[in-house]
Amino acid sequence: MDHVTVSARRNEPDGSAHQRGSPGSAVNTARKPLQPHPDRLLPGEPTERAIARRLYESVRDLPLISPHGHVDPALLAHNTPFEDPASLLVTPDHYVTRLLHAHGVPLHELGLVDQDGSETAPPREVWRRFCQHWHLFLGTASRQWLEAELHDLLGVTVHPSADTADELFDELVAKLAQPGMRPRQLYDSFGIEVLATTDDPADDLRHHRALQQDPDWTGRVIPTFRPDHYLDATAAGWPDALDRLAAASGVDTGTYAGLIRALENRREFFREHGATATDHSATTPRMEFLSEPEASRLFDSVRAGTASTAEAETLSRALLGEMARMSSEDGMVLTLHTGSRRNHHFETFARYGPDTGHDIPLQAEFTRALHPMLERFGTNPRFRTVVCTLDETVFSRELAPLAGFYPSVYLGAPWWFLDAPRAMRRFRDAVTETAGFHRTAGFIDDTRGFCSIPARHDTARRVDAAHLASLVAEHVLDEDDAANVLRDLNERQPRTAFRL
Amino acid sequence: MDHVTVSARRNEPDGSAHQRGSPGSAVNTARKPLQPHPDRLLPGEPTERAIARRLYESVRDLPLISPHGHVDPALLAHNTPFEDPASLLVTPDHYVTRLLHAHGVPLHELGLVDQDGSETAPPREVWRRFCQHWHLFLGTASRQWLEAELHDLLGVTVHPSADTADELFDELVAKLAQPGMRPRQLYDSFGIEVLATTDDPADDLRHHRALQQDPDWTGRVIPTFRPDHYLDATAAGWPDALDRLAAASGVDTGTYAGLIRALENRREFFREHGATATDHSATTPRMEFLSEPEASRLFDSVRAGTASTAEAETLSRALLGEMARMSSEDGMVLTLHTGSRRNHHFETFARYGPDTGHDIPLQAEFTRALHPMLERFGTNPRFRTVVCTLDETVFSRELAPLAGFYPSVYLGAPWWFLDAPRAMRRFRDAVTETAGFHRTAGFIDDTRGFCSIPARHDTARRVDAAHLASLVAEHVLDEDDAANVLRDLNERQPRTAFRL
Amino acid sequence: MDHVTVSARRNEPDGSAHQRGSPGSAVNTARKPLQPHPDRLLPGEPTERAIARRLYESVRDLPLISPHGHVDPALLAHNTPFEDPASLLVTPDHYVTRLLHAHGVPLHELGLVDQDGSETAPPREVWRRFCQHWHLFLGTASRQWLEAELHDLLGVTVHPSADTADELFDELVAKLAQPGMRPRQLYDSFGIEVLATTDDPADDLRHHRALQQDPDWTGRVIPTFRPDHYLDATAAGWPDALDRLAAASGVDTGTYAGLIRALENRREFFREHGATATDHSATTPRMEFLSEPEASRLFDSVRAGTASTAEAETLSRALLGEMARMSSEDGMVLTLHTGSRRNHHFETFARYGPDTGHDIPLQAEFTRALHPMLERFGTNPRFRTVVCTLDETVFSRELAPLAGFYPSVYLGAPWWFLDAPRAMRRFRDAVTETAGFHRTAGFIDDTRGFCSIPARHDTARRVDAAHLASLVAEHVLDEDDAANVLRDLNERQPRTAFRL
Repeated sequence: MDHVTVSARRNEPDGSAHQRGSPGSAVNTARKPLQPHPDRLLPGEPTERAIARRLYESVRDLPLISPHGHVDPALLAHNTPFEDPASLLVTPDHYVTRLLHAHGVPLHELGLVDQDGSETAPPREVWRRFCQHWHLFLGTASRQWLEAELHDLLGVTVHPSADTADELFDELVAKLAQPGMRPRQLYDSFGIEVLATTDDPADDLRHHRALQQDPDWTGRVIPTFRPDHYLDATAAGWPDALDRLAAASGVDTGTYAGLIRALENRREFFREHGATATDHSATTPRMEFLSEPEASRLFDSVRAGTASTAEAETLSRALLGEMARMSSEDGMVLTLHTGSRRNHHFETFARYGPDTGHDIPLQAEFTRALHPMLERFGTNPRFRTVVCTLDETVFSRELAPLAGFYPSVYLGAPWWFLDAPRAMRRFRDAVTETAGFHRTAGFIDDTRGFCSIPARHDTARRVDAAHLASLVAEHVLDEDDAANVLRDLNERQPRTAFRL
Repeated sequence: MDHVTVSARRNEPDGSAHQRGSPGSAVNTARKPLQPHPDRLLPGEPTERAIARRLYESVRDLPLISPHGHVDPALLAHNTPFEDPASLLVTPDHYVTRLLHAHGVPLHELGLVDQDGSETAPPREVWRRFCQHWHLFLGTASRQWLEAELHDLLGVTVHPSADTADELFDELVAKLAQPGMRPRQLYDSFGIEVLATTDDPADDLRHHRALQQDPDWTGRVIPTFRPDHYLDATAAGWPDALDRLAAASGVDTGTYAGLIRALENRREFFREHGATATDHSATTPRMEFLSEPEASRLFDSVRAGTASTAEAETLSRALLGEMARMSSEDGMVLTLHTGSRRNHHFETFARYGPDTGHDIPLQAEFTRALHPMLERFGTNPRFRTVVCTLDETVFSRELAPLAGFYPSVYLGAPWWFLDAPRAMRRFRDAVTETAGFHRTAGFIDDTRGFCSIPARHDTARRVDAAHLASLVAEHVLDEDDAANVLRDLNERQPRTAFRL
Repeated sequence: MDHVTVSARRNEPDGSAHQRGSPGSAVNTARKPLQPHPDRLLPGEPTERAIARRLYESVRDLPLISPHGHVDPALLAHNTPFEDPASLLVTPDHYVTRLLHAHGVPLHELGLVDQDGSETAPPREVWRRFCQHWHLFLGTASRQWLEAELHDLLGVTVHPSADTADELFDELVAKLAQPGMRPRQLYDSFGIEVLATTDDPADDLRHHRALQQDPDWTGRVIPTFRPDHYLDATAAGWPDALDRLAAASGVDTGTYAGLIRALENRREFFREHGATATDHSATTPRMEFLSEPEASRLFDSVRAGTASTAEAETLSRALLGEMARMSSEDGMVLTLHTGSRRNHHFETFARYGPDTGHDIPLQAEFTRALHPMLERFGTNPRFRTVVCTLDETVFSRELAPLAGFYPSVYLGAPWWFLDAPRAMRRFRDAVTETAGFHRTAGFIDDTRGFCSIPARHDTARRVDAAHLASLVAEHVLDEDDAANVLRDLNERQPRTAFRL
């Protein structure tokens, strides 16, 4: 089957088919062996490659520290087996579904549930769609992770394609049924040292508790406090969220002071379950620090439905400011993941819900936005913040200068669209000359895909090794120093930045 | 003659001359041979170079698809011979004249007609100016194209310089008089498959029709619908433009509904002459979608001269929105070339007119700006848009994420100041990890210079080969896949993106 | 001593110590030899390196032209010996103190005087702090300069560390007492051709005059006119500044016309002392060109304390516009260093004063901001401006296009956080394809550290050699042309751009 024709036909309003140009094209490599190269992502140039390989080898097998991500703790609490490759690798991964969608595949054909009633495709069909379009991922970060997962974890030795889809599906269903492929066994074989999840403040953290109380479980899975729903006073669901928080905390959230007490209460509850950090995804990182009467007045006005949008936004920024204030007191690390326009395509959101691949980055600004927070807490030794961005222009302009002065500010790893080999290199190139290596937080996988964790960390280790090798080759530092730095990036930096 | 002295003297208010520092400098290489290297723009590192060379060879001789540019169709309709190198290579190329202007050469000395009455230099004088300053183009994209045109097309074997200017002029005048150097013969020898021009909606497309009806002509030259003058309700000339449109379409443009009908009428006329795309160069890509009564009210108010600037801008954005709506119905591809501050230096504009080298890029924003359009048409299979930018910060931040979700959005090639080897590499590095290769539109030469078309496509092929070779060397993809991708970038992607 | 523990302990609110992970870490290299590699910063790839080495050798020993910086002219006028390495290399260098501060070292432990009364550490203690944290500078630009200064200038052959701090301190105190290490002797041995300082318009320039009248002094030290304090009408100290200016100029600054005359008077005084340039560090480069009555009205209103902040800002922009107007008349080069949010952390500013490491860059915009200035003076042959930025996104988008058209606009060198090897490469990659090499100003060290001047120029020469070598290896230009360009970047470009 013709690879370009598939997408072209789908997209052509006139339905015209394109003839094939290239007899040697991807379509003919249906049974092409899948063998990720041992030196992948290391430099092509032989001298640098040799250095990079030694550096990479020195950290390849270090334990994995995952200080921020979106794995469901129930997965480990229940140790539920994975069922099939589509449910494991395709449907839940919005990096994958979004690009297939861009090539004309409707999301319900990828396993997403459509509120408009289109039939959701069964896993085997989803897997076929994915395999047919495998070549479209060439050059993407997803392809790197998927090749590593398929080959290193799942033992696949042939590339996905229309011709191999069914046999791969059957092979992987059988593979996933093996005892060693269950989540807890994988946690051990992955060498995970600590795994932070992301949790709602009203969550009862039963899965975390179950794991912590389980005598057979030796891992470390900790929650992260993510209060977005309770801080966004502009959202229609905000009053309901406050009610949920009241129920969870036993604190009346009908006043500003009550909401603040309830949030403090839940932060303490999270810390008791091992949490060391909070996480925030507001559109911008701007905060306001209002007087208590002023904040109370705004709160009452928003609750009464008499506030303007601008007032609700001010209140939201004040609540984010309260998070910073609380962090300066309780020591929880304030993780900022701001700057995305969520749910860009309303129809897709209405049909398939959030996190379906159309959160699109916005231009970022931190120098002015973080000023009120840093003015207050920037040199406070209890306060710590890890700042991530989707806008790489702020790496050299704002984030490296800020982290190069304020002891509380750590540079978060390249995030989301920037969590890819060349973007990671640009990150290191942009920040290192100003802030060095030791103001960065190390790698953060931020993944929903538990099985992708080793592949993602491995990518980061290769890319950092390659970056350091280029500095060694240019005699900016020597190989011993490079090895120490690389080890620090994988051990001390995430531990320090996230207080693990 | 001393190369630095020329510009220094011209720029020094005190007229002081600088003495030469370097005896081995460019000035002494007056008869330096011009021999563009066969491996130019391929990687310097031997392993990558070998891969890149093979990849480049595999597409070097493919036909040229030029889906957007500014060649005058009369050139091919009349098959007018080119007369001299200055009129061919210098005067009409604002990349060239702008840099000479920056080094102190007035534009009328480069053949531009000055409304203030300075005498326009004759071609031989223009050519001398250019040759004297040839070294100032070192490292620029223009130098690459010019070297290729001079050597590969025109057979020049010596570098331009003050000493060689006159002999080159004579040699090139003779060369251009040869029968094989006429536009139609070049069209064939260039291997052009399709050439899109850019045309005013009121144009009668007589040259396109003449070519299409000419039994001796086997090429494909198609118009592109560029309605800027009719959509910009803030321009002083807008009422006149509407009158011209009414005359061309036979539709009264005295009402909003009439203007819309007239535009639809002309789009249909363009499609009948082979057009597949429209092109837009508004300052920003923002659109508004107004109700018909609201739009009519604004239209009437602007025509009556009673509207504010803000209202005229709103109307302009609404008219751009109508273009998107029409594209979603008639399938013409909406090409966006936004983000330039046109005619930055008013005095130069007043003396020499538009397109004289001082259109300067502005910061771009697409995530919010394109939202209203994509909300409506983003997943509509008849709608397609190719988005170009002069601000490379949006490549990774906005354009790749948008094109990686919306099936209607294609990433336009690096444009204008970014249409240069290293900028092209940055484009590929910035977008591929998020959107892959198959959401990009392939190369768009966007040139006014017919004879530069092969050189520009050749540059793009070399740069894409070099980029892919680096990925092969880093084992991100294998060489077979790279070859398929490179072929797709030169064939399927422009055909698909522009519905050719 | 454990290198990570130091900073970790300091930052941990709970004081918990981290155990060491890496037995081979930097801590064990206490007596590691310091030997900067002769090929440092040249490409790692052998072919490119060979070319780069030849190019670098061809300019390595050229005289140093320093057209903009912050060396105190008294240093050379008095030829005061340097006393110790902390006062020379640590305390006055905010690149160094800021990163140590980010790792938890209070500024008074680095020799800064704290208004809050913390005891300022003596030089030996400061030096110890610095040596303990030496590894934190790995990969930074500061590390490059410091290694070169320590080894090449000061003869140090061992890396700083906790173990070597004291012996290095003693060794360097002795070294600095040698006659050849006094400023005038260093000026000669550095091979400085011209050194521009940065001076207040009310300064009597006594040190410049003393040097110029000293028969034993053959160097060239010239002032630069930096009138920020007199142009910022929003500052609390502005009225006092006007009084100082009146005293210095003998012109009443109680009216707008008087202030303008006083500024013109001082510019003339500076020119008489050799100045060729002015320098400006407003937050933005925006200017206004008001009528005299309008400007006078604003001036009177601000002086009377009745103006709004917006009016004071308008007046400030108008005063910056007057600087451009004066430059177009007196030919002084207008140097723009805009775009920093000064004194980001108020508490640090209150305790330690300005220039203490927390000036943080802001997003820049030049296309619109410079339009009023360039509309008026952009093609005026007496007018010249050198534009610097802290926001590298404007390199390709705005600055290269502007400098590639306007004969008056020169691209300033990568500045401040961007004055680092890889940032410099990005600068060249971003601007060369549009503006070539001859619209750039050459290297500007912009340093307060007299002894860092050779190291900084050496870095720039290496980086430019490496950039050019990559172009030679890719056959974009040949090695002869590259050598000519590199020489021009070191001689003609700074001389031309700054009218030296």
